[in-house]
Amino acid sequence: MIAKLKRMLIGERMATKAIVHEKLSNAEGLAILGVDSVSSTAYATEEILRALIPAGIAAFYLSVPMAIVITVLIFLVSFSYQQVVHAYPQGGGVYNVAKKNLGEFPALLGGSSLLIDYILTVAVSIAAGVAAITSAFPALHQHRIAIGIGIIVLLTWMNLRGVRESGKIFALPVYLFIASCAALIGYGLIAFFTGPLPLLPAAKSAHSGGEILSALIILRAFASGCTAMTGIEATSNGVPLFKQPESENAAKTLFRMAVILGTIFAGITFLAYQLGVTPSEHETVISQMAHALMGNSILYYVFQGSTMIILLLAANTSFAGFPRVASQLAEDGYMPHQFLNLGSRLVFANGILALSGLAATLLYIFNGSVHALIPLYAVGVFLGFSLSQLGMIIHWQRNKGNTGKMLITFIGFAATVAVFAIVFATKFFHGAWVLVPAIAGIIMLMKKIKRHYTDVANFLSLERNSLPRVEPNRTMVVLVSEVNRAALYAVHFAKIFQPAHLRAVHIAVNQEETEEIRAKWTSHVPDVPLDVLTSEDRDLFTPIITYLKAIDGMWSDDSVIAVIPEFIPENFLHNILHNQTALRLRYIIESDPELNVETLNVPVKANTPFTGQTPIEKAA
Amino acid sequence: MIAKLKRMLIGERMATKAIVHEKLSNAEGLAILGVDSVSSTAYATEEILRALIPAGIAAFYLSVPMAIVITVLIFLVSFSYQQVVHAYPQGGGVYNVAKKNLGEFPALLGGSSLLIDYILTVAVSIAAGVAAITSAFPALHQHRIAIGIGIIVLLTWMNLRGVRESGKIFALPVYLFIASCAALIGYGLIAFFTGPLPLLPAAKSAHSGGEILSALIILRAFASGCTAMTGIEATSNGVPLFKQPESENAAKTLFRMAVILGTIFAGITFLAYQLGVTPSEHETVISQMAHALMGNSILYYVFQGSTMIILLLAANTSFAGFPRVASQLAEDGYMPHQFLNLGSRLVFANGILALSGLAATLLYIFNGSVHALIPLYAVGVFLGFSLSQLGMIIHWQRNKGNTGKMLITFIGFAATVAVFAIVFATKFFHGAWVLVPAIAGIIMLMKKIKRHYTDVANFLSLERNSLPRVEPNRTMVVLVSEVNRAALYAVHFAKIFQPAHLRAVHIAVNQEETEEIRAKWTSHVPDVPLDVLTSEDRDLFTPIITYLKAIDGMWSDDSVIAVIPEFIPENFLHNILHNQTALRLRYIIESDPELNVETLNVPVKANTPFTGQTPIEKAA
Repeated sequence: MIAKLKRMLIGERMATKAIVHEKLSNAEGLAILGVDSVSSTAYATEEILRALIPAGIAAFYLSVPMAIVITVLIFLVSFSYQQVVHAYPQGGGVYNVAKKNLGEFPALLGGSSLLIDYILTVAVSIAAGVAAITSAFPALHQHRIAIGIGIIVLLTWMNLRGVRESGKIFALPVYLFIASCAALIGYGLIAFFTGPLPLLPAAKSAHSGGEILSALIILRAFASGCTAMTGIEATSNGVPLFKQPESENAAKTLFRMAVILGTIFAGITFLAYQLGVTPSEHETVISQMAHALMGNSILYYVFQGSTMIILLLAANTSFAGFPRVASQLAEDGYMPHQFLNLGSRLVFANGILALSGLAATLLYIFNGSVHALIPLYAVGVFLGFSLSQLGMIIHWQRNKGNTGKMLITFIGFAATVAVFAIVFATKFFHGAWVLVPAIAGIIMLMKKIKRHYTDVANFLSLERNSLPRVEPNRTMVVLVSEVNRAALYAVHFAKIFQPAHLRAVHIAVNQEETEEIRAKWTSHVPDVPLDVLTSEDRDLFTPIITYLKAIDGMWSDDSVIAVIPEFIPENFLHNILHNQTALRLRYIIESDPELNVETLNVPVKANTPFTGQTPIEKAA
Repeated sequence: MIAKLKRMLIGERMATKAIVHEKLSNAEGLAILGVDSVSSTAYATEEILRALIPAGIAAFYLSVPMAIVITVLIFLVSFSYQQVVHAYPQGGGVYNVAKKNLGEFPALLGGSSLLIDYILTVAVSIAAGVAAITSAFPALHQHRIAIGIGIIVLLTWMNLRGVRESGKIFALPVYLFIASCAALIGYGLIAFFTGPLPLLPAAKSAHSGGEILSALIILRAFASGCTAMTGIEATSNGVPLFKQPESENAAKTLFRMAVILGTIFAGITFLAYQLGVTPSEHETVISQMAHALMGNSILYYVFQGSTMIILLLAANTSFAGFPRVASQLAEDGYMPHQFLNLGSRLVFANGILALSGLAATLLYIFNGSVHALIPLYAVGVFLGFSLSQLGMIIHWQRNKGNTGKMLITFIGFAATVAVFAIVFATKFFHGAWVLVPAIAGIIMLMKKIKRHYTDVANFLSLERNSLPRVEPNRTMVVLVSEVNRAALYAVHFAKIFQPAHLRAVHIAVNQEETEEIRAKWTSHVPDVPLDVLTSEDRDLFTPIITYLKAIDGMWSDDSVIAVIPEFIPENFLHNILHNQTALRLRYIIESDPELNVETLNVPVKANTPFTGQTPIEKAA
């Protein structure tokens, strides 16, 4: 029944050979792998302005030079990642690069920061996507968390069904967004150069933040703006998706993406300043810009819609990335093996479920606010950038790369480390400190998991060439809870094994029960001795374990097998009406470290007709 | 580990013989069995006034004659319950009375209404107890649900530990409350007769409710006031707790309780009217009275404190009652057998947990409001009253009771049915309608549960004198997931049973795996054939079931046993790191209706030293 429901929701099982290795054209690759990166323009400018608010809107002019610096950084990091693309054509996520060049600890640091980033990509992108909706329809603002979690459920469902990252589906909204942005910025620039721009009313009722413009505020605003750079690494993870020559195509795409990203980001930031946009709780900065330039026309709604869709597509990329990294970590033994299971629809279902659960939790805790999530996000991303670049430096040293490549990588490393330091320091008390215990905890846990798997593999390995001794005789003990057909069938069944010793045991909770069961047993099974033990405190398990230990010690050349009759109800749900004592008994017998007893389960099924040929024996 | 935590929280297991049958003096009996009843004076007056508000405070004078009528009803119902006490000295809850006299459906109707009442007693009493606290400390009002649920958790914990209803602990706060009420009413009456009472300011800023005083409003107010009668039945449930002569002592106590209840209720209602108290969201009526008469003195806080404590004690009585009724219903097969389990501390732990879960849910849904819960509560109580009285009429007819007893019971029945009708009709749209589908659903479920248990008992009964045929030969199939020590040990173990046929089976998901496992198996276990099946869609379970069916059909004189090697990790929590495939396989094999296969589990334990004496075989 549960299986049916599952099939209805996520579809029929798919054969393993149905895995397709789609190859992307460069235009499709730009859409699929660039969406995460380009979508960050939806919130990066706003984050700069928000960080400048404490110094008053007079400080907003700083956003323009900051955007220029960040655009330079975007190109720098992109060049640097082009090296990664060439060096790791099989896909160079930070986990792989660090594992190969830097050792276990940096690899786990990179792996855990990558997992956290995927979770935050979902949380931030969905929060921003919902903000795009609620900017257009303010009445929905109070329902933003419910909408966000609804979208996560939808994405989870689609991904569990195994929606492929189809280039065509992605390409349309991504290019629509790029075109909308280009139109918006183009129109804005023309208006700027040909006549006065319409100043927004919010700018007139401006408030000085009350704080003096300090180096800290400037750095913090710069750090906030660096969220524009999130997602650049995605292309380097997806090199194998490109057509031949893969690395070259990926590198080209990376450069084009940097151009688009830098242009849109710088353009939006410039126009936002010129329009006098002030961040507000209820409308995003780019929505205010679009409103100012397009009014309430249909074009405004198209722009908001395409913004929302590319943010959801950005979130969706994590649904491919997170499970893939989790499965790599699981393959190396650092995460539970369950993340390795390819589900019925050829996706890593457990990874998808873990991601959506964690992202929904973050969205709820941070009250659906992009601004609150950004500090965590930015720190994680730049940690990953820095580790990747460091790995590449080691890689070039080992592989004797030429000086030019070395230099680019080194400059990239220096830049990302500097940004990482700025972001971490300025955002530390805004929530980034959480990442220190979180990452430390994850790494410790991963190491513990690895140790456990190594221990088990050693334990089960055939290299230690011995097994526990198997005693040839069989002592069988039937555990009887009631004298009924299930118990009698189990006794009959045990007999075919020709045990050296066959006994039955029952735990009674009072004298009455003892006598009753003894009489009934003797009348039905006179040839098998029944031991009735009394449990003073109604505990069934301790007396059974003690009894089985005593039986085990009685003869030296025998193996003890506990025979457990089990009634299986017709309907799975009916199990609720039964105590499940058989199940618990089996578990307790199997897990007791000092007990060397096997269990034989003799199921009696309510859904098979019980028309037998073995007459029930009766004492004469 | 879980066992340890449980022991720490609820204490060591107790022996069955530690059950004590405490006998209560009449004074103690009044405190224990009367607390539920007497505590309803804390909210009954308020409910009348609230129901009158729509007709304006000018209608409040009606509360006094209503209180007089209700007090008369209290005596009538008490007389009637005295008959129950004499007829059922073993304790005459409505379920028992209806079962013996009226048949299955009325018994289930009574039983389910009783369960619902116990849940509502907890919800209402705790909501009212919290209101007593928040009246004294208004800042706590916004935290009322958290406080209420905290109290439920505390009561649950105490009752799981098995706190006895010790007469002495109960007696003190109950008599303190009675004394406080007596003092309050006495002082109020003296003030009323000797000089003008201090009128409350609320009365001056009075508001007309805008509705005309209608018969509906009057009936509704009367119905609300009848909540004063809740809890009268408790004494009749607890007859066996009294000293000899039990019934006589219980009957005496019932009368005394009626006197105390009637006096306090009538007194509070009279004074509330004279003081001009108006119900408010933030302070209870009796708190306003106490404030008016005692000011902010220490006496006021003592009064509020004792009010709160007896309401919590009233809630606590349900923690004894609900599990007892649930266990009776479970014994008769109408509720899951789990409610019959006497837990480690000699209490029906599952009943306690179910009660607290349901009561906390109600408290949360109804936002911690006494007023919102009352309609449900009153209807359920009067349904129970009516069924009890009807049962008694049948009882007297069958047992030829004298005319006097008959008459009292009949008047009691007529009165409770009339009140039930009024309460149900006037509260129907205020939420009481919920009880119709709820009770109908519960009764249907109970009947279904009963049918299931009857079916299972018939199925397992030894009266049908046949068992499925047991074939003498043994075909054993070892399910192999990996060629490791666990699998090899299982093969060795299977061999001691001297099976007619011994095979092994592995499900591979690709060609590579097939070849690898075949090679490894042949090198280690050349004498047992291994069947390797390929699963195109990575589903392990369907191929195994199909395979076992084929094996079962191969020979006609054999029983098929699936041998499942199972690795048991050292620590219970480590199970999370393993796929639990063995567990699921076992369940699927056992529950397949067409598969007649037993399972033999061969555990290999990480916590036992694996220093064996059987060398691992190798092909030469």
